[in-house]
Amino acid sequence: MTERIPVMRPQLPTADELLPYLRRIDEARYYSNHGALLRELEERLAEFYGVPASNVSVVANGTVALSAALLAVGAKPGSRCLVPSWTFVASAAAAWAANLRPYFVDVDEATWMLDPDALRRRNDLDDVAAVMAVSPFGAPVDTAAWDAFSDDTGIPVIIDCAAAFDAVASVEKAKPGRSPIMISLHATKALGSGEGGLVISTDERVMERFNQICNFGVWHAPGQILGYNGKQSEYHSAVGLAAVAGWPKRRHALEALTNEYKSRLSIIDGIGMVPGYGNGWVSCYCNIRTAGDATASIAKLASAGIDTRRWWQKGVHRQEAYSRFGRDPLRVTEYLADRVFGLPFFHDMREQDVNRVIEELGTALQG
Amino acid sequence: MTERIPVMRPQLPTADELLPYLRRIDEARYYSNHGALLRELEERLAEFYGVPASNVSVVANGTVALSAALLAVGAKPGSRCLVPSWTFVASAAAAWAANLRPYFVDVDEATWMLDPDALRRRNDLDDVAAVMAVSPFGAPVDTAAWDAFSDDTGIPVIIDCAAAFDAVASVEKAKPGRSPIMISLHATKALGSGEGGLVISTDERVMERFNQICNFGVWHAPGQILGYNGKQSEYHSAVGLAAVAGWPKRRHALEALTNEYKSRLSIIDGIGMVPGYGNGWVSCYCNIRTAGDATASIAKLASAGIDTRRWWQKGVHRQEAYSRFGRDPLRVTEYLADRVFGLPFFHDMREQDVNRVIEELGTALQG
Repeated sequence: MTERIPVMRPQLPTADELLPYLRRIDEARYYSNHGALLRELEERLAEFYGVPASNVSVVANGTVALSAALLAVGAKPGSRCLVPSWTFVASAAAAWAANLRPYFVDVDEATWMLDPDALRRRNDLDDVAAVMAVSPFGAPVDTAAWDAFSDDTGIPVIIDCAAAFDAVASVEKAKPGRSPIMISLHATKALGSGEGGLVISTDERVMERFNQICNFGVWHAPGQILGYNGKQSEYHSAVGLAAVAGWPKRRHALEALTNEYKSRLSIIDGIGMVPGYGNGWVSCYCNIRTAGDATASIAKLASAGIDTRRWWQKGVHRQEAYSRFGRDPLRVTEYLADRVFGLPFFHDMREQDVNRVIEELGTALQG
Repeated sequence: MTERIPVMRPQLPTADELLPYLRRIDEARYYSNHGALLRELEERLAEFYGVPASNVSVVANGTVALSAALLAVGAKPGSRCLVPSWTFVASAAAAWAANLRPYFVDVDEATWMLDPDALRRRNDLDDVAAVMAVSPFGAPVDTAAWDAFSDDTGIPVIIDCAAAFDAVASVEKAKPGRSPIMISLHATKALGSGEGGLVISTDERVMERFNQICNFGVWHAPGQILGYNGKQSEYHSAVGLAAVAGWPKRRHALEALTNEYKSRLSIIDGIGMVPGYGNGWVSCYCNIRTAGDATASIAKLASAGIDTRRWWQKGVHRQEAYSRFGRDPLRVTEYLADRVFGLPFFHDMREQDVNRVIEELGTALQG
């Protein structure tokens, strides 16, 4: 029997790589509540992104980070938050958990993202408390364009860059601005700390509020604002530090796999990729867009032992719990949702596995 | 210079104790999303509490556990949640984060808790979506009384037993019932996993909903209900498993310290303790109640090198962010909040440290 190829095979630092950090935890007897390892991780990440350490905060997970960022930028409770449906369910869940009403807006066909210029032309912006832009599968987001949108309209923006750990550092236009960027450090991402989420903003007041909110609303003084428990532990910080130390090597492997997929897929008819896929950045995915509905191809790949995943399912608005929320027509979203899925992608994927994926994909597409 | 005695000195399992669990994580390459170590931790805790494993769920922290439990029992968004002000700020924060309006109710003088019989006599129960009872500093809560309250009134109840890891297992009347109990596994608690929270309920449907909510509303099927990311990682589960393995020894040390404090404090005039303190249960605290306002005594202890803490500050309703919410008169809460504080308490406290605390406390109270 042929071995199945999984769609993802995360690998975080080994116990031996963690050991020096764990010894420091033993020594300090300090385990959470913004400890020394967390502060060091925030410093390493600030260097990586070229911002002061006060612009970076690492918290318990990406979802609580998005909710807290929405509160930190002052999104008014009970109001609408514009969010794409073409995203993972956590984006909309985070808006709801910040006591906002997600309102689904279509993405642009060329970028697979919300388009700030299209949003500017809406005639319902008076009723919008915030916008959540979402990076498609780790692609770079134009942060300056969103800062300009926010300045011009007075509407705060946050940017869900869950899978864009690398693009935010590697691609000039994606570098951090005032609008808070969230990057997930979940185990499945390019760089992981187990569970974790990172927020970056050059707005110090927003970061101060963000830190307060993630610590029960208490940071330097008691109970000033309402908040969550978003605290990241020293254990996950240890994993994050070891992962950051190993990043150059890991990025090298992800880049090689990205380039291999790009070149092999470019000669298959009818396959599209995430716009700009791998142009100077890596992520934890290789998502493709088929010419028609992908259901049959996915099934054929599955019978050939190739696991795939519709990482964003069929769009958030089609999920039962979110069908109650308001939305625009979502033509592009539904087009993409029917056609896009992720191929197997993990840093130590073997050449013969990539060969098998490409071969079986070719067969599956031929029908 | 005399060494300061800290109010708390947490100690979780050492790196060496964690190593066998971390090796299992390396082997499985599985780091979060309800992994094997988490399931094993839930099984161990279920045995400890004498319930089936399906009655137990371990999530990212106690605050998200409380919010998710409120949603799981069906508390209607936008409505009032009765909650004591005599608690840690996280209790009220969790109600707010479940989109409820905390409404502060006074505690009973004899128990320091909400009294189900007093609540039954209220004439405003029509407007109450849920009640959150709170164990004072790890003391046992009468779970059957709350289940009966819930049955009689139709109002769902959840029980914040953050510090009652031991009492829920050791004291008969505190054993789990239908109303979900939340126990914190934060590093500062009697048993810790770093960050973490545990929910127990004998109501399988509530537990099913709870698990769904803590996994973005998705458990066996996609997007059925709204939810959070409440996922507990394999790393924290490893810490929890090692801590559970070491619990008998640790409990022994905590019990000895509890008894030592009880006997030494019983002969100091004007000192009260948490009702029933240490009667068959241990926690991570030794809180005392002074005859008058404790501010001067706390200051004197601080100058003598003894750190103390008002663990619940001066009551949640007195914190700026919570002053906006409705409340009853809070006579007992304010009485306790002015007088109660925690003495140094940690499992490896030395005899001479206890001696110094008792001696300096005597001096502080005299003058």
